Amino acid sequence: MKKPGPRAMSPEKIQSLINVALGKEKADLVVHNGSLVNVYTGEIQPDYSIAIKGDRIAHVGKDVNHTIGPDTRSIDATGKTIIPGFIDSHTHMCSIINPVEYMKFAMLHGTTTIITEIQEVAFPLGFRGIKYFINYLNHQPIKIFFTAPPLVTLSKTVDSHFLTPQQLRWLLKQDEVVGLGESYWLPTIRGDKRILDLISESLPTGKRLEGHSSGARNNKLIAYFNTGITSCHESINMEEALEKLRLGVNVMIREGGIRRELAAIAKIQEEGIDLRLLSLVSDGINARILFTKGYMDHIVQNAMNQGLLPTTAIQAATINPAAHFALDDIVGGIAPGKYADVVVIPSLATIKPEYVISNGQIVVQDGLLITKPKRKTWPSFIKKSFHLPKKLTAEDFRISANTLDGYVKVRVIEQIAELVTRELITEVKASNGIIDVDTEKDIIKVAAISTIEQPGTMSVGLLKGFGLKRGAFASSASWDSGNIVVVGANDADMASAVNRIAELYGGSVVCCNGQVLTEIDLSIAGDMSPLPLEALYTRLEEVQASLKQLGSTLINAPLSLVVLTSPAVPHLRISEAGLFNVREGVYVDLFVH
Amino acid sequence: MKKPGPRAMSPEKIQSLINVALGKEKADLVVHNGSLVNVYTGEIQPDYSIAIKGDRIAHVGKDVNHTIGPDTRSIDATGKTIIPGFIDSHTHMCSIINPVEYMKFAMLHGTTTIITEIQEVAFPLGFRGIKYFINYLNHQPIKIFFTAPPLVTLSKTVDSHFLTPQQLRWLLKQDEVVGLGESYWLPTIRGDKRILDLISESLPTGKRLEGHSSGARNNKLIAYFNTGITSCHESINMEEALEKLRLGVNVMIREGGIRRELAAIAKIQEEGIDLRLLSLVSDGINARILFTKGYMDHIVQNAMNQGLLPTTAIQAATINPAAHFALDDIVGGIAPGKYADVVVIPSLATIKPEYVISNGQIVVQDGLLITKPKRKTWPSFIKKSFHLPKKLTAEDFRISANTLDGYVKVRVIEQIAELVTRELITEVKASNGIIDVDTEKDIIKVAAISTIEQPGTMSVGLLKGFGLKRGAFASSASWDSGNIVVVGANDADMASAVNRIAELYGGSVVCCNGQVLTEIDLSIAGDMSPLPLEALYTRLEEVQASLKQLGSTLINAPLSLVVLTSPAVPHLRISEAGLFNVREGVYVDLFVH
Repeated sequence: MKKPGPRAMSPEKIQSLINVALGKEKADLVVHNGSLVNVYTGEIQPDYSIAIKGDRIAHVGKDVNHTIGPDTRSIDATGKTIIPGFIDSHTHMCSIINPVEYMKFAMLHGTTTIITEIQEVAFPLGFRGIKYFINYLNHQPIKIFFTAPPLVTLSKTVDSHFLTPQQLRWLLKQDEVVGLGESYWLPTIRGDKRILDLISESLPTGKRLEGHSSGARNNKLIAYFNTGITSCHESINMEEALEKLRLGVNVMIREGGIRRELAAIAKIQEEGIDLRLLSLVSDGINARILFTKGYMDHIVQNAMNQGLLPTTAIQAATINPAAHFALDDIVGGIAPGKYADVVVIPSLATIKPEYVISNGQIVVQDGLLITKPKRKTWPSFIKKSFHLPKKLTAEDFRISANTLDGYVKVRVIEQIAELVTRELITEVKASNGIIDVDTEKDIIKVAAISTIEQPGTMSVGLLKGFGLKRGAFASSASWDSGNIVVVGANDADMASAVNRIAELYGGSVVCCNGQVLTEIDLSIAGDMSPLPLEALYTRLEEVQASLKQLGSTLINAPLSLVVLTSPAVPHLRISEAGLFNVREGVYVDLFVH
Repeated sequence: MKKPGPRAMSPEKIQSLINVALGKEKADLVVHNGSLVNVYTGEIQPDYSIAIKGDRIAHVGKDVNHTIGPDTRSIDATGKTIIPGFIDSHTHMCSIINPVEYMKFAMLHGTTTIITEIQEVAFPLGFRGIKYFINYLNHQPIKIFFTAPPLVTLSKTVDSHFLTPQQLRWLLKQDEVVGLGESYWLPTIRGDKRILDLISESLPTGKRLEGHSSGARNNKLIAYFNTGITSCHESINMEEALEKLRLGVNVMIREGGIRRELAAIAKIQEEGIDLRLLSLVSDGINARILFTKGYMDHIVQNAMNQGLLPTTAIQAATINPAAHFALDDIVGGIAPGKYADVVVIPSLATIKPEYVISNGQIVVQDGLLITKPKRKTWPSFIKKSFHLPKKLTAEDFRISANTLDGYVKVRVIEQIAELVTRELITEVKASNGIIDVDTEKDIIKVAAISTIEQPGTMSVGLLKGFGLKRGAFASSASWDSGNIVVVGANDADMASAVNRIAELYGGSVVCCNGQVLTEIDLSIAGDMSPLPLEALYTRLEEVQASLKQLGSTLINAPLSLVVLTSPAVPHLRISEAGLFNVREGVYVDLFVH
C-alpha cells in the first residue's frame, strides 16, 4: 500500500500545527528545558523546549507552556542536551544484518533517517526486489530513503537485473528514492555507456547522484564530477577530503564497518573553512560495531574525540546530509514544521541517546527501545532467491595448465590490505597438467560462481595473502555481483562450502575436511541473516575464529572475501567470467602468455 | 517550444565534459589565473583557472593547459578575482521595468540566475499569462526561475485568475518553477482555506514555499513556518533576522527598490554563527538603482561595506540561495559540471563585473554588454490586457454621507511611512451630503477600480499623509490586485488619470486641471513599461517631480501609491471592494458607526 509521501500535509494538518503554535490546540508531546543544538546557526540554545503535534515539530522556544494541555506527554530534558535525530546518508542496510535488526539498533542509537544503497537486493532480485524492500522499509518508525542502484559489476550474468530506463524513471519518481546510487569512478570516466545513460536519465530529476571516487585525484577526479555526481565517501586523508570539498562535493567521512577514516580527516576543522559539505556516514555498519559500540552516535562521538567541534560533528550527521539530499525541508534540524526527530543526550560531550523521538513517537526511553520496527515474513522469492543446477565437486575447481609438468606464469590476486589487492605475476608449478594450491607460498584458490543468469557458471583463479592453510570459506554476500565467492586450500572443501550455501539459499560457510565448521544463514536475498544482531555478531566471531584456526591472518576475513568480486576496490578481482583488472577495466587471463 | 530542463545532459555531453577534464577534448573557453572565490569552502584560491565546454564548467584548477586547443578562447584574469555569477533569489521581474531591460542590466551587473515572483503577470492575465512569461523567459542568456503565485489579495474580482489545483500542479512540474511564491503570513496563519490548499498541494513536490512574515515574531512566526514555508525577505533588523535563522529559515536580506535592510542586519556577521541560511535579495529593483548603481553587484558591495566578510557576502548571493532552492547541483558555485556562470571582478574589494559569462557565453566583456536578451513583440492579450466599460467622471469619485451637513466619523488610511499605513478614525465635514477632500488637513481621496472581473467596479476612500494639494495620480501597477489605484485632491483629475490609463492599457499618470502632466506607458500586462531602462528612469523622475510640484511630500510617491492595494503591508488598505484592515483580516466601512 502506498502511503502519502514524506512531505505531504493535508490543509487540516497544517492548520493544526498553526493552532498549536498559537496555543489554540495542544501538543501531543513536549520536550522540556534542555540545551538545544541549533544546527542551522551552530549555536547552543540553553533552556529550550520543543512541542510536538503528530509527527511534526509545532513549536521550539524558551516557552512552550501555551501548547501544553491535560493530554500532553512530557519529557524533562533539564540539564540535558537536545539534538536532531541523526542521518546516515550513505549506508548499506541490506547487507549481512537484516534491515529489521539494523533499524532496531539505528533507533537505539539515535538515528531517525537513513539513506541506503540497495544493490545487495538488486543484484539477486532485480527490480522486483528493489520495489519490495522500498515498500517494506517505507512503513517503519524511522525514515528510510534509497538510491537507485546502478549495479556497476564485473559479472556478465546480471544483465536481466540492470534497471531499464523505464524502471529507473519509475524509481526516481518515488519520494523515497533520493537519487542514483554510487557509480564507481573508473568505469564512469572510462565512458561505460550503460552508466552514462543512467546518469543522463537521473540528472533531469534534480535528485542526487552519489559518487565513489576512491583514489581519484586531479584531472580524473574532475572528470568524474563533471558528470553531475556530487558526493564521495571514499576520502582516506585530509588532502583528498579538501580537494573534494573545494570541488563542491559532499565529502562523506566514512567511519563504519568497512573503513574508519575519521582519524585521518577530522583535523580538517583546523583549516578554518566552511564545512557545510562535510557529512559523517557509515557506508555500512557491521554487527560488531553496532552491537558493541553503536551507530551514528558512536560515529559522532568519534568525530568529536578526533577533533571536530561538537556542533560541527552534529551538523555533519544531521543538517549537512539533509541539505545534500535536499531533504532539509523536512529533516535535519529542530525547527517549526519539520519532522519531530529528536534525541536527548546527557551532554554535548556524551552522545548517548536517552530518549529518541522519531516521527513524533518516543522510540527509545531511558536508553531502552520501546518501539520496534515492523517485522516481515519474507516471501519465497526473497528467501529462496537462487538455485544452482547441480552440486559442485572438487573437479569444478580444477585448474588445468597447458603444460603437463613444469612452471607456468600466472596472474595471482594478491591481498595487500584488508580490501585492496594487486596483480601478482608469478610462476606456479603444474603437475600432470594441473595447477594446485601452494600453501607454502600462501597461494590458494579463489572462485566465483554465478547464481543469477546461467547459474553455476564459474571461474577459478589463484589468491595470495589470505593465509588459509586448510579448508575453504565461501559466501553468497559477495559485493557487486550475484556470485558466490569462495576461497580454499582444498578443492573438495570449496565445493562443500558452496553446496552448503546453495542448500541454505544463501550463507557464509567455513568447511574443512568435508565438514562444515561454521555457517551463517544468509537466506534473505542470499545476502542477509535472519538472526538477531547479537546472535549474528557471535556467529561472525565464530567464523573469524574458524578461519584463524585454518590459518587466515586477515583481520576481517569475511569482509576481505566478499570484496573480491567488487569493481569498487583496486586492483585485481574475480567474477564468474574470470579475472578482472579494475585499473585497466578489462578481463585478463589467469595465464600470462 | 519546450527546451530540455536546465539539469538535462545527454550521455554524449557528459562524455564530452569528461574528455575535456582528461585533455582528450578541448575547452571552448578558458578563464586564466585569477583569485577564485570558492563559495563551498569560503576560501580564496590564488592562481586558479577555469575551463568551459559548452554551457558547463569542465575543469577548475591551478593548471588547465591540457584543456586548451587552437580554438579555445581565453580570458586573462591575472590579478583579478573570479566569482560565481550572482543569484537574486527573490525579486519581481515583471514590475514597471520590462523583463528584457531587467535582464540586460542583470547581465551587465553579473547576475546569471534570477528567481522571480510573477504575480504582477498573474493578476491581470491569469494562468495564460504565467505560462507565456515562463516560456518567454526560459529562452534567454541567463537562467530565470519562477515561483507559482498564490495571489494573496484583497480584491474580490480576481477569482478567475487564481491558480486551480490542476494549474498549480502543472506549474510545479515545470523545471523552471522552483516553488510556491510568497504567501503573506497573516492570512496564512489565520487559516485562509485557499492558501492552505495551495500549500498542501505544493509541499509534496519538495519545492520551496516562499515566505513573507513582515513584523511577525514569536508564536505567530512559528505558526507561520509550521506550514512548511522556509524563507522570509522581510526582516528589518538583526533580532528578526536571528530569530528566523534559528528557526531554520532562509533569511533573505532585502536591499532593493522597496526597502534596504543591509545596514540594519549586516552586523549579524559579528554573532559568529553559521550563516549558510543568509541570502541577499533585491525583492524587486527599481530603475533608479538599476541604472545608477547596479544590481546584485551593488547589493553585494553594500553588504561588504556594511560589515559582511567578502566571502560571506558572495556566498549569500550565490551558493546560499542556490542551496535554498535545491539548485546547487547546477548553479551557485564554480565547480565541475556546474553551469559556467562566472564573473571576473577587479578585486574582492570591488564588485564591478568586467567579464560576465552565463551558460558558457561571454555576455559582458570589458564591462560592456555584448549579448542581448531576446526581444518580444508582445501579443495583444498582453498589450491590451484590460478594458474599462466606460469613461469615469468626477461623479464616480463622489463620497456620499448620510448626513447633509456636519461632521461624520470616518476611517482614513494614514500614510505613516513610505509603505506603511494605519487606520485613522477622525471626523470629516459633510456639505450637501457630500464628503470632499480637505487638503488643509492633508486628507485627499483614494480609489481602487477593478480591471479584471466586473471591470469598473470601484470603491473610494480617504487618505492622509500623501501630501497632494492639487491634481491626481493613478497607476495600473497596483500591488497584489488587478486594480487601478488612484489618489487625488480633485475628483475630475482622478477620473482623467484613470481614463488615460485605460486608453494606454496600463500606465502611471499624473493629472492636474484636466491635463496630463506626466505619464508612463505601462501597457505590458498593464504593469510594465516598454521603455528602455534609461528612458524609464528619466520618466519616473519626472513623475516624482510632478507629484512634488502638486504637493506630495513622499520620498517615493509612485511606490507609496501602488502599495495601497497590498495585503502584504500593514495596516489599512483599499481594493475595489472597499477598505481592508490587514491586521484583522476584514473589510471595514469608510464610515464608523
